[in-house]
Amino acid sequence: MNYKMMGRFVGRILMVEGVFMVPALLISLFEKELDSVRGFVWSLVIILAVSWLLIWICRGSKNKFYAREGLACVGISWLIMSLLGCLPFCISGAIPGFIDAFFEIVSGFTTTGASILPAVEDLPKGILYWRSFSHWLGGMGVLVFLLAISSVGGSDNGFTMHLLRAESPGPNVGKLVPRMKKTAGILYLLYIVLTILNVIFLLIGGMSLFESVCIGLGTAGTGGFGVRNDSMAGFSPYIQNVCTVFMLLFGVNFSCYYMLIIRQFKAVFKDEELRLYLGVVAGSILLIVLNLKSFYGTLGETIRHAAFQVASIVTTTGFATTDYDLWPGFSKAILLCLMVIGASAGSTGGGFKCGRMLLVIKSLSRSVRKVVHPQKIEIVRMNGNPISEKVLQNINAYLAAYAIIIGASFLLISIDGFSITTNISAVLACFNNIGPGFEMVGPTCNFASYSIFSKLVLIMDMLAGRLEIFPILILFSRTTWKHR
Amino acid sequence: MNYKMMGRFVGRILMVEGVFMVPALLISLFEKELDSVRGFVWSLVIILAVSWLLIWICRGSKNKFYAREGLACVGISWLIMSLLGCLPFCISGAIPGFIDAFFEIVSGFTTTGASILPAVEDLPKGILYWRSFSHWLGGMGVLVFLLAISSVGGSDNGFTMHLLRAESPGPNVGKLVPRMKKTAGILYLLYIVLTILNVIFLLIGGMSLFESVCIGLGTAGTGGFGVRNDSMAGFSPYIQNVCTVFMLLFGVNFSCYYMLIIRQFKAVFKDEELRLYLGVVAGSILLIVLNLKSFYGTLGETIRHAAFQVASIVTTTGFATTDYDLWPGFSKAILLCLMVIGASAGSTGGGFKCGRMLLVIKSLSRSVRKVVHPQKIEIVRMNGNPISEKVLQNINAYLAAYAIIIGASFLLISIDGFSITTNISAVLACFNNIGPGFEMVGPTCNFASYSIFSKLVLIMDMLAGRLEIFPILILFSRTTWKHR
Repeated sequence: MNYKMMGRFVGRILMVEGVFMVPALLISLFEKELDSVRGFVWSLVIILAVSWLLIWICRGSKNKFYAREGLACVGISWLIMSLLGCLPFCISGAIPGFIDAFFEIVSGFTTTGASILPAVEDLPKGILYWRSFSHWLGGMGVLVFLLAISSVGGSDNGFTMHLLRAESPGPNVGKLVPRMKKTAGILYLLYIVLTILNVIFLLIGGMSLFESVCIGLGTAGTGGFGVRNDSMAGFSPYIQNVCTVFMLLFGVNFSCYYMLIIRQFKAVFKDEELRLYLGVVAGSILLIVLNLKSFYGTLGETIRHAAFQVASIVTTTGFATTDYDLWPGFSKAILLCLMVIGASAGSTGGGFKCGRMLLVIKSLSRSVRKVVHPQKIEIVRMNGNPISEKVLQNINAYLAAYAIIIGASFLLISIDGFSITTNISAVLACFNNIGPGFEMVGPTCNFASYSIFSKLVLIMDMLAGRLEIFPILILFSRTTWKHR
Repeated sequence: MNYKMMGRFVGRILMVEGVFMVPALLISLFEKELDSVRGFVWSLVIILAVSWLLIWICRGSKNKFYAREGLACVGISWLIMSLLGCLPFCISGAIPGFIDAFFEIVSGFTTTGASILPAVEDLPKGILYWRSFSHWLGGMGVLVFLLAISSVGGSDNGFTMHLLRAESPGPNVGKLVPRMKKTAGILYLLYIVLTILNVIFLLIGGMSLFESVCIGLGTAGTGGFGVRNDSMAGFSPYIQNVCTVFMLLFGVNFSCYYMLIIRQFKAVFKDEELRLYLGVVAGSILLIVLNLKSFYGTLGETIRHAAFQVASIVTTTGFATTDYDLWPGFSKAILLCLMVIGASAGSTGGGFKCGRMLLVIKSLSRSVRKVVHPQKIEIVRMNGNPISEKVLQNINAYLAAYAIIIGASFLLISIDGFSITTNISAVLACFNNIGPGFEMVGPTCNFASYSIFSKLVLIMDMLAGRLEIFPILILFSRTTWKHR
């Protein structure tokens, strides 16, 4: 392992984190929240000191960087970024316990939105902003991370990873533009423009600037930290609908937007993942509306809540306009399935991803056909492009890892003795980066009652889910650390 | 498709079913249960008539029989066997509704043990016997079915290997007959001897002959239909312990017994699947005992119930000595995980199977190591033997089918509006051929409250789970029926 290079990488990431903490400090200063100011100043000092130390200690080494270093770096830098990013919560006293603060910031960076806080309205504004901003930063990081691992598909150098090509089935983000830096720029621009549009639409609805920004950041990252105790329930129907639309927009594969810009409308229209994603959304809303019947006063209200909740869960955002835990069983079952399916590949959303799901189904139905025609060779295609067997194998490995981690996590957090539904939904909500689940971790509840051990398990789930499992898994493999 | 050959095959299977119905008829005659006698006589007439008709209509065609016909035949014959096998329940009036009777007999043949009957003690003895005997017949069918699909994998020794090649597209049933007959004989002998031993041990404990035989048949098939309303709770500790031991014995890969007979003790001792299976059992019992603490009066009682329940669930039998739904959350979570893991490949038990689980884990950890050493070629081994990439691919396809079917079934039966835990455990209990689940389908409850639609979904789950998915899946594939 090229530890020096990894150290420099982490050091630079921390510097970025420090810079991004400045606006939160300014808000605290502006609002005269002394505890928060103290929290952010000390955190900044510590973060920049660690960053500088890492860069200084790890100076001078060749730039050779293999896949293992790349992936391990991603895992480690998210861990360290979170360990230091939770300092403002601790030092300001907003969240006294370190593990709780750690849980909260991991939930932020991984765009999960699961909280250990029973109430957020009493929090200082600077802290609230940092919480929501962590979603946006996480979403940004994920975009570039996905880009990094998908853009190197063919070449042998640097970040290359075979299994990670599974990342963006469908139109490969990296192939759109030859140079990654340029693509990253376009992605970030799209991300920023969409976020600003979201904030403007919220402002038009009469939301305060501070709330609009926080909700906008939380929507863009498909995070889900709210600024009010009732999440989004207290806002007007207009604002809820704006939120629904933007959550769905942020769950679309960003390469679709790029293709719209370069006027490839037909490719977007025919994109199989996009069709599946929109089909799942429309179908779920329809079924839930039919199932809810007269649960709400009017059909309009029913559609609004159903659409909001479907958008929130499938994009793995996790906002709530209503206590969906009170919905009838079928509606809850649909939400539970949406938790697993997740958003599109190449978006800021989490979950198993529509694109992967599509390939798993295609590859399975080929297996069934192969029983009938054992000799026939059939190639799985996505949007007309052939998908290599290697990619299909990697997706299957991903599915296996996905299932095993969910099973193991469920077993581990069950030690706390909560109900099966609570525990399953807690694991799904964290691993798929959604936020709320059902029953004791439902939309009106929080994760505070879990033990420290369970919180640590769920923290690892959030990170593993966000980083597409393998960057975290290889940290636990002996081979990673033995290798010279 | 060679429909004539398939018709003859099904006809012959039905004849076997008819013959095996005779003892139940004799018991009914002996007990002077007039309704049952009527039920069995009419059923016999219908079954034999259909059987004879099929064989007559489908007479004369070449014996060419490909994989697709073999697999489709398996699916279809289990379906028809069940459709006719439930006639005694309907005609005798023991279970008036046809779908309920169908559910009950599918649950029997698939060795699931899920029941729609709130009480079984009032049932006529002939009916009770037929119910339990269906488990034994199902177990026998599964053994020979597994044999059929595992012995064709390659040129390597007959059925020593696991059913891992089950999914391998293209078992040519025609080619394996000569070697298979001998192996099938040995398997059946083992199965019969173990069943008789089980009955003898139960008789020693003072159980009546009728109950011993029924419980023995239900244990051998890892079925789980009981003869008393409280399943096994009312029997003595000795009988419960005998049952625990025999359930575990029937969950072992039968090839291990074969190897014991041919004195290959070392191979048995070193068998990785056996080790995993016993390790899972021992670990689960230990953890549940620790978790239950003072739930029962004495440590002995705690160990007895924990061991019984672990054995019952992991072997997918489904008997109960206690209402484990009242156990603390961690113990229930362990049982839920055991439901998925299941027994050993090549046993009468269901579930995902220990052997498959082992290969999924091995193949996954290879994927993780491959990130670190992308160039290195590593072969997955089981008991020292290399496992081909094709087998690993098939296991992954199996996992995908497994996950998708569970998700889809859960969604479909949720329409009835029961709780998430009830529905998840109902699907797992049926698909893995266990029987009872949690909450409304817990050990003291039954499946009667589900709608007809949900019952049909669960029936397909039981069949798919029992037949290792693909024989049922190909029945739904257009390609199967289009092919000439």
